[in-house]
Amino acid sequence: MNRPPWKPSGLITLLTDFGTADPYVGMMKGAILSQQPRAAIVDLCHGVPPQDVRVGAWFLRHSLAYFPEGTVHVVVVDPGVGSGRRLLVAQDRGVAFLAPDNGLLGPVLSPEARVYELDSARFARAGASRTFHGRDILAPAAAAIAGGLEPARAGAGPVEPLGGVELPRPRSREDGGLEADVVLADRYGNLVLSAAAGDLGGGAEGWVIEVGERTIPLRGTYSEAASGELLAVIDSYGAIEVAVRDGSAAARLALRPGATVVLRRRA
Amino acid sequence: MNRPPWKPSGLITLLTDFGTADPYVGMMKGAILSQQPRAAIVDLCHGVPPQDVRVGAWFLRHSLAYFPEGTVHVVVVDPGVGSGRRLLVAQDRGVAFLAPDNGLLGPVLSPEARVYELDSARFARAGASRTFHGRDILAPAAAAIAGGLEPARAGAGPVEPLGGVELPRPRSREDGGLEADVVLADRYGNLVLSAAAGDLGGGAEGWVIEVGERTIPLRGTYSEAASGELLAVIDSYGAIEVAVRDGSAAARLALRPGATVVLRRRA
Amino acid sequence: MNRPPWKPSGLITLLTDFGTADPYVGMMKGAILSQQPRAAIVDLCHGVPPQDVRVGAWFLRHSLAYFPEGTVHVVVVDPGVGSGRRLLVAQDRGVAFLAPDNGLLGPVLSPEARVYELDSARFARAGASRTFHGRDILAPAAAAIAGGLEPARAGAGPVEPLGGVELPRPRSREDGGLEADVVLADRYGNLVLSAAAGDLGGGAEGWVIEVGERTIPLRGTYSEAASGELLAVIDSYGAIEVAVRDGSAAARLALRPGATVVLRRRA
Repeated sequence: MNRPPWKPSGLITLLTDFGTADPYVGMMKGAILSQQPRAAIVDLCHGVPPQDVRVGAWFLRHSLAYFPEGTVHVVVVDPGVGSGRRLLVAQDRGVAFLAPDNGLLGPVLSPEARVYELDSARFARAGASRTFHGRDILAPAAAAIAGGLEPARAGAGPVEPLGGVELPRPRSREDGGLEADVVLADRYGNLVLSAAAGDLGGGAEGWVIEVGERTIPLRGTYSEAASGELLAVIDSYGAIEVAVRDGSAAARLALRPGATVVLRRRA
Repeated sequence: MNRPPWKPSGLITLLTDFGTADPYVGMMKGAILSQQPRAAIVDLCHGVPPQDVRVGAWFLRHSLAYFPEGTVHVVVVDPGVGSGRRLLVAQDRGVAFLAPDNGLLGPVLSPEARVYELDSARFARAGASRTFHGRDILAPAAAAIAGGLEPARAGAGPVEPLGGVELPRPRSREDGGLEADVVLADRYGNLVLSAAAGDLGGGAEGWVIEVGERTIPLRGTYSEAASGELLAVIDSYGAIEVAVRDGSAAARLALRPGATVVLRRRA
Repeated sequence: MNRPPWKPSGLITLLTDFGTADPYVGMMKGAILSQQPRAAIVDLCHGVPPQDVRVGAWFLRHSLAYFPEGTVHVVVVDPGVGSGRRLLVAQDRGVAFLAPDNGLLGPVLSPEARVYELDSARFARAGASRTFHGRDILAPAAAAIAGGLEPARAGAGPVEPLGGVELPRPRSREDGGLEADVVLADRYGNLVLSAAAGDLGGGAEGWVIEVGERTIPLRGTYSEAASGELLAVIDSYGAIEVAVRDGSAAARLALRPGATVVLRRRA
């Protein structure tokens, strides 16, 4: 088998739904550094809503471009921990992934990804819990892979990861518009939609977003709106986002993730 | 005196009740790195409820196993800052501790621990405040100890740390059951109890937790319950924990830290 | 031109209003480490209230003393992102700053600061967004400056930064007292005032803070009050702060940032 070589950078990212109120993230870092003291650990985000595999997939997919080759991305959004669900290790486009097999990696991996079932027994800490595999299995595995272990040698396979999680896509309407979902509301109350610049045929010029009775223009950037005014922009994810200049669109429109809006080219 | 040698790993952990809304943690890191640029600093947790020494002790005690020898653990849960309360430095099982003398270290240290009163005047930054000894005294002391200073040489003693904080333990009932307290609710709304697997005579098999009218079975892991169902598990702390699969037990049961529940072997 | 030399320490701090629910901070760290793998990144704080340039200025100004020479401080509180507002790079007292030109650096820089307009085009990542210059322009610039690029060579100028943001100062009253504003409420509910120890003529002895009908004494430290009692202290910022021992002054007094109080020497 002609596998691409594995060249670790020593960088490990953590993406979890642990929040920051508890010491769970700290424990994972300790477990990694106990084994690999020179690893550099970056908190990608611990604010994934509890057990929300889809938002986790969104965050990871849109963050990959900013990390160097040789990074090990560890994902612990794991509603099925302790069940028979497998743990996965993958190598794709020069980086490695460790995650439960719950569909989260589906929208993240490329067709060239090589995915393996992690050899959990090999990496499990003595006295490993049945409720925190992130700390007790994935952290030691991440330390080993960041230290040079080839992902393919950390498991068996290749295997086919579980499908299931799909990031929402915009849907075409008969009138030529699009229907899109609110994927998430960020700290500013900006509403991130399931439509990207590339989904707007012929460019972003002239599009509006309809929310109930309101028609919200797509602009170039926040500051093209007056303070307090609704607008839409191409945001930091490359997605269409509904915002209020100096305010919260989530509060103003009373919209939550899962809500549906219409995108239309202005007549 | 035949003291165990001090071999620092360069790793410093921070456990505080500062939260993340303010720059207090950042200031502490700057104070450490100003003096010891090569220190690796890990946030153990900054989500200890304000001035809750008992939860701080719980977090630290249950996190120690995940950190390597030579770690310096710095604790800043410090309701008595600026008063006459002492600052402590301790060496125990190959790691060092720095903390106010408010009882927090009681449930954390082993009988072999060597505890000293920190020489605050020696480490205090110029213009040290009376309200933030974590930044102005403990951070410089941690930098020095992570850099090689023996804990015993950072203070005077040995001294006896203040008692007072005890982690709650389950109480035996005449009917053969146990009474336990809710220690904390984590981000998921899981209710961590003051009883561990080892407190259940004859193993976990067949135990239930009674909360009001409800009887909640102890299972192997979250995924043995149906979505939305109440269950108990041995959790990431090694404690008995009441949870709702894919939900919040704290919300469902309207229980808060300090509440009491009954553990009983099912008839 | 006789510029002071630039000696980077490799330390980069991040001060933002991103919060921790989203992966924005993680993306910035990835962008920095992709270019400068040996940089040490410290989260100064991500809890600046959304777009609150004034609190950002307060946090940064009061944190500088704790960081070593050669630090690069990156600020992303940026309500005008994507507009014509400039990005600034500055060198001052041995450290470097990168920030939008929105007035935030005004209360932070000394009269000796050398400020330049950042050459955004030079540092912009391929496909840079119009909504997240922190990640797409400032992060690469910070990596370059932490790696040795002289701040003056990262932009054009010197230029005059935009004024506008002023940290609130106490105002003299005819009766000899002072009027001060609540600058912020921290995690403990402590109310930080716009008056410092130095504003109290003749020392802190005998001063009280008046809030409505209440008269609150200035004490040496929290523990000089009884549990639950209101008091004022010189706090971790060097500011006068109203607190409740073991409680929240913000909740007790129902005061928010912007409220006004009176400081008076007790008769």
